[in-house]
Amino acid sequence: MPQYTPPLRDMQFVLHEVLDVTKELKILPAHAELDTDTINAVLEEGGKFAAEVIFPLNQGGDQEGCSLDPANHEVRAPGGFKEAYERYVAGGWPALSCDPEYGGQGLPHVVNQCFYEMLNSSNQAWTMYPGLSHGAYECLHAHGTAEQKRLYLPKLTSGEWTGTMCLTEPHCGTDLGMLRTKAEPQADGTYHITGQKIFISAGEHDLAENIIHLVLARLPDAPQGSKGISLFVVPKFLVRPDGSLGSRNRIYCGGLEHKMGIHGNATAQLVLDGAVGTLVGEPHKGLAAMFVMMNAARLGVGTQSLGLTEVAYQNAVAYARERLQSRALSGPKAADKPADPIIVHPDVRKMLLTARAYAEAGRALTIWTALQIDKEIHSPDEAVRRDCADLVALVTPIVKAFLTDNGWIAISHCLQVYGGHGYIREWGMEQYLRDARINMIYEGTNTIQSLDLLGRKVLGDAGARLKKFGKLVQSFVGRRSANAGIPRAPRRPGREGHQAHL
Amino acid sequence: MPQYTPPLRDMQFVLHEVLDVTKELKILPAHAELDTDTINAVLEEGGKFAAEVIFPLNQGGDQEGCSLDPANHEVRAPGGFKEAYERYVAGGWPALSCDPEYGGQGLPHVVNQCFYEMLNSSNQAWTMYPGLSHGAYECLHAHGTAEQKRLYLPKLTSGEWTGTMCLTEPHCGTDLGMLRTKAEPQADGTYHITGQKIFISAGEHDLAENIIHLVLARLPDAPQGSKGISLFVVPKFLVRPDGSLGSRNRIYCGGLEHKMGIHGNATAQLVLDGAVGTLVGEPHKGLAAMFVMMNAARLGVGTQSLGLTEVAYQNAVAYARERLQSRALSGPKAADKPADPIIVHPDVRKMLLTARAYAEAGRALTIWTALQIDKEIHSPDEAVRRDCADLVALVTPIVKAFLTDNGWIAISHCLQVYGGHGYIREWGMEQYLRDARINMIYEGTNTIQSLDLLGRKVLGDAGARLKKFGKLVQSFVGRRSANAGIPRAPRRPGREGHQAHL
Repeated sequence: MPQYTPPLRDMQFVLHEVLDVTKELKILPAHAELDTDTINAVLEEGGKFAAEVIFPLNQGGDQEGCSLDPANHEVRAPGGFKEAYERYVAGGWPALSCDPEYGGQGLPHVVNQCFYEMLNSSNQAWTMYPGLSHGAYECLHAHGTAEQKRLYLPKLTSGEWTGTMCLTEPHCGTDLGMLRTKAEPQADGTYHITGQKIFISAGEHDLAENIIHLVLARLPDAPQGSKGISLFVVPKFLVRPDGSLGSRNRIYCGGLEHKMGIHGNATAQLVLDGAVGTLVGEPHKGLAAMFVMMNAARLGVGTQSLGLTEVAYQNAVAYARERLQSRALSGPKAADKPADPIIVHPDVRKMLLTARAYAEAGRALTIWTALQIDKEIHSPDEAVRRDCADLVALVTPIVKAFLTDNGWIAISHCLQVYGGHGYIREWGMEQYLRDARINMIYEGTNTIQSLDLLGRKVLGDAGARLKKFGKLVQSFVGRRSANAGIPRAPRRPGREGHQAHL
Repeated sequence: MPQYTPPLRDMQFVLHEVLDVTKELKILPAHAELDTDTINAVLEEGGKFAAEVIFPLNQGGDQEGCSLDPANHEVRAPGGFKEAYERYVAGGWPALSCDPEYGGQGLPHVVNQCFYEMLNSSNQAWTMYPGLSHGAYECLHAHGTAEQKRLYLPKLTSGEWTGTMCLTEPHCGTDLGMLRTKAEPQADGTYHITGQKIFISAGEHDLAENIIHLVLARLPDAPQGSKGISLFVVPKFLVRPDGSLGSRNRIYCGGLEHKMGIHGNATAQLVLDGAVGTLVGEPHKGLAAMFVMMNAARLGVGTQSLGLTEVAYQNAVAYARERLQSRALSGPKAADKPADPIIVHPDVRKMLLTARAYAEAGRALTIWTALQIDKEIHSPDEAVRRDCADLVALVTPIVKAFLTDNGWIAISHCLQVYGGHGYIREWGMEQYLRDARINMIYEGTNTIQSLDLLGRKVLGDAGARLKKFGKLVQSFVGRRSANAGIPRAPRRPGREGHQAHL
């Protein structure tokens, strides 16, 4: 059975010693009152929730999976998931970084980022239910009409309702320009939406009383390709003007996917059969609106692999300290025992340190990114807001691809540390590896991220964003050059003729 | 549902056009009569068996797994496995490269190597049952007493009985010097063996009427560590002098492991409770004797990942030719269709070509290695036998580690080609990846292979084996230097001061 200890000290190190977030946040009127103790106390409680409530459900959720009752299209999440979600809602966790206008607690994204790392270390499949809700919240917050905000945001903030993003169809995933789901305008201003969606995470379940689907579809007069896609809110149960639940909408789960991992999350095929929806944002501009959710989700996916890397590392290093096998090459290190703990062996150390490096660097990168998001949203200085938005746009595909590609390598290393035991279900490592594999695929495959990085983010503005990032690095190096602990690397002999890389 | 086509033409290319095996084998008296048509015909039939009999059982075997009846310690393999094994035996396949003295067909290892690649492409979990039997056959053939050979080899050759290797115990895998299983000598010359073994592949099942376990254990007077380990034959049912089955031996399956993959193979915990065994080889020299089996198994494990890489590649390339998504960067390639097949995209091509390179190079390396084994066994020239033994020893850890590490990367690429569909069970790719993960661990983790390569094989004889291999490479380069198709790479400008690598 794997264990998990929330890495609070490591988070505090990045938050307070590396980034000094309290000082940075003080400049933002929305967060001016926030102090270090509050941040630490919230994370301590959040860590308890993660480690004590949802971590114990992770292996059972993997083995049990979700089940669909074809008679009524209802899906049951694994045992304990619903009760844990009720505690999550009761504890006010969904509201952590939501807008106070809709009932949110208004805490900064840096806090939510650390919280989500711990949730994902504890149970990626479970965390996808609130994670997608939060993405739907952000999309509606940015692009919803006043009425949509009034109807949906308070319930998404409280967690009483959850959300999804419905993009993929059987014949199109990456190439959304090919999507066929149709939206027909009705006299009352709503739309009737018909089509089939697949791979919808948290697409149907029993955790919450309503599910708010954000659905991409085409209007009758839509141009071909990705410029003819519109975004709609399609709730599972229609919502009356007073906010109470109305009749069941015509969006049904037609099947659940059998997957390599994340068995505890219901990956649904959804059939829309004239389901009632309302338009979000402008007609034919749905993809741009959905990208608010997608960018949040991409950072979220990077955080999923960060969480898995951390928990896999914690367990592998504990195993390596206890498992006795062979002697150190440099002579016995535990002479009183029949063999040395395997942590003495260089290759075991290399694998563990690789995982640790990815976890620690990944944590630093994601918290730094979250801080840029807080500044992008709340800085009183427009130039700062623009710079931060640029930096977030630049690093989003990096957070997604770098953390998931390297998380995959790191978790595979951690499994390898266990030898044959790593391949056995009860130890938990093979689940982490299976769960982690999806992160390189969904929310845009990692190659799509590289196209986004190079095509849009670097070449799209002739390197302007990249230069902003370069200046940050240059400034950091300048400030640290006097630090004796970071000596300038000596030039290697024989390479004088080459461009120095440092 | 994945598909599989035996790569007969690719095998023939390596066998006949690259290695000219018929000419090489003609020098060996045991294979002087063998011609190209016979080799090709055997492989064509072998490919049919693999693709038509065991490939269709692969996904079902993964989903069903093996089951243990705790009441009688009997294990049932997944549906169809037993019937397929009966056809395997009826077809004479176990005997392919076995010694005619014990009923074998005496075909060379190069043929068996190609056959096993196809079996592993079709169903790794199933193939482990006959694969381990063949390892037990080789170990007893090399180190068994005349009586052991008489009793066991004909039935292992025919496939009526299967075999296992019992090394690992709960507290030791890599460090076999720590093993505790005890063997007490009896007045009748047998031993009573008591202990617990874990991770025993094909350790208990219903495919054959008897299972011949090769068990490492300690004699009462055994020195500490790996120099005090002896090897024993411990049959599931004792064998009477006339070869008929006697009473049930006291070796029982105490549990089956729940694993990431190879669900169709029964990975057993075996309890020995005074089980009757006979000594193989010299007392305290069991590890050396077991290494005959282990070396065969290491080449076998490399072949497992080769097989999985090939079948994953075949399916990924077929999918990439059919799946339409986005346009080629250089302009539409299938203008009559709504999008281009994804094989036009550079990253998809890179992933596919990586997998293909590992499959083709892995095939060439394994067949070349098998040819060296044939020459090691059958060459009339002692110096050739010694040189070939050296080369096989040198490349064994490379075949094991290089093919399994890179197979893992390649199969993950092939899964990625499918996008989200790669994560879905029905497409089959995620099973190939799960099955492949064990190959980097068992029969000595890949780091153990690197220690074997560097410590024993390269430094152990001060580089003598490595120089033999280097001469082969040098000779190849010399013979090919006039080939206009293999031009000498031009020196890169600016690197004149460095040692040229080519």
